[in-house]
Amino acid sequence: MKTISENACFGGTQGVYAHNSDTCGCEMTFGLFLPEEAQDGPVPVLWYLSGLTCTHENAMTKAGAQTWAAEHGIALIFPDTSPRGDDVADDEAYDLGKGAGFYVNATQDPWAPHYQMWDYITEDLPRLIDANFAVDLERQGITGHSMGGHGALTMAMRLPGRYASVSAFAPIAHPSVSDWGRKQLSAYLGADESSWQAHDTTLLMREKGFDGPILIDQGGSDQFLDLLKPEALAEAMAERRQEGTFRMQKGYDHSYFFVSTFMEDHVAFHADALYGR
Amino acid sequence: MKTISENACFGGTQGVYAHNSDTCGCEMTFGLFLPEEAQDGPVPVLWYLSGLTCTHENAMTKAGAQTWAAEHGIALIFPDTSPRGDDVADDEAYDLGKGAGFYVNATQDPWAPHYQMWDYITEDLPRLIDANFAVDLERQGITGHSMGGHGALTMAMRLPGRYASVSAFAPIAHPSVSDWGRKQLSAYLGADESSWQAHDTTLLMREKGFDGPILIDQGGSDQFLDLLKPEALAEAMAERRQEGTFRMQKGYDHSYFFVSTFMEDHVAFHADALYGR
Repeated sequence: MKTISENACFGGTQGVYAHNSDTCGCEMTFGLFLPEEAQDGPVPVLWYLSGLTCTHENAMTKAGAQTWAAEHGIALIFPDTSPRGDDVADDEAYDLGKGAGFYVNATQDPWAPHYQMWDYITEDLPRLIDANFAVDLERQGITGHSMGGHGALTMAMRLPGRYASVSAFAPIAHPSVSDWGRKQLSAYLGADESSWQAHDTTLLMREKGFDGPILIDQGGSDQFLDLLKPEALAEAMAERRQEGTFRMQKGYDHSYFFVSTFMEDHVAFHADALYGR
Repeated sequence: MKTISENACFGGTQGVYAHNSDTCGCEMTFGLFLPEEAQDGPVPVLWYLSGLTCTHENAMTKAGAQTWAAEHGIALIFPDTSPRGDDVADDEAYDLGKGAGFYVNATQDPWAPHYQMWDYITEDLPRLIDANFAVDLERQGITGHSMGGHGALTMAMRLPGRYASVSAFAPIAHPSVSDWGRKQLSAYLGADESSWQAHDTTLLMREKGFDGPILIDQGGSDQFLDLLKPEALAEAMAERRQEGTFRMQKGYDHSYFFVSTFMEDHVAFHADALYGR
């Protein structure tokens, strides 16, 4: 692991690090914010999974999460959204290939050799961070934006006990029936739609739900509402009697201005769960 | 109008009053909390509509709303849930007739002569209260529990501009397809289901929504979830992109212990709207 940069930030440190990922078969870069409290011992962790076209860097600089993570003494992890490098398959479209890993383990060519983002986020990167930083992986929460909200929600539901809490900003909520989903899931997982179910938040909510609290924020003027399908998730959460809150925020769009506006609430929500309040 | 009782309460006054209602053709009783600020001039108003079997009295004594209304300087109105008196038709069932007016204007015998609760809540009682108390009807919010949540939501959507905000605790959300609804709507309005649509929150949400914020709390262990149908409303709100928050509260049932737990949030929510915050 090598250090790309470290900056003092809200009394703690915002770092960027790179490492050779066996899972993805390439060098991967991630951001990690450690609050001041990490100097005294391991701190709880909040994962932030980013959306289409993003790297580790967008949320780290635009979501305003460090403000609140410092207040609550929580670390933030900002992974990349796909494998990277010249050897890695790509597509000309913004929503397939690099920057669009969709948080799945690809089984299809040409994606399978590197596009293993599910395992990267849930196994490879936690192991690396646990070995190198003062974090307490017994206390993890997960959140994300758009494609990252999809990743956060599917991981939280499929790994019971792993995350104490999950939230999402404008998640891709029902990809198996959306153009944000069918294209990527068929490319990465193949045409057999039964393999997609494990990567569809609405279907997972109908099937199992999450054993903990959920917070969803969705902008009411989001330009991608037809692709995100929040109504499917809202219904599934209520039908499941899922502990949680679904908020439609009037006038907000899909941007980081929306994300940053409600970040305080999300970090406080995770802090309550991570500190057992 | 006559005064039944007045008690000092959180620096203001909790009163109970009775009046002859032309609309209902009988004497009607209601509770009214006026905060201390009402001594200096008109204050904003929050309506609280009660559920099946309740009178004006249940929420007044069990919901804990005066605590927070006093803090925000807001009046609370607690109407009865049906016409009353020996001349008024009734049914042996708890969910039809007295205590079960369902906030509609009945058109069918034997209910039509007295069961005019829509007009009573939206016309008769506001006029009376405006003439006798220091309230500002330019600033009204409305909430309710169960059948009262149904009343609050249907009134808010069908009277645009009247209420700045609407909230509900475990509302009967889709009565036209529920045993809490089909029985009462057919009795009061007749077999023609087209007349029911104006009294079904989910159908009104699909059709028009509400021009302001909505807050819904639903207990996850509510014993009447199958009758309330919160999933239909959650989906309709998200599909409409309705500004608002839908919360599934883990472990809470249908009782006033649930209502009182979240009353602080609801009064604060209405206060924000009533004071233009």
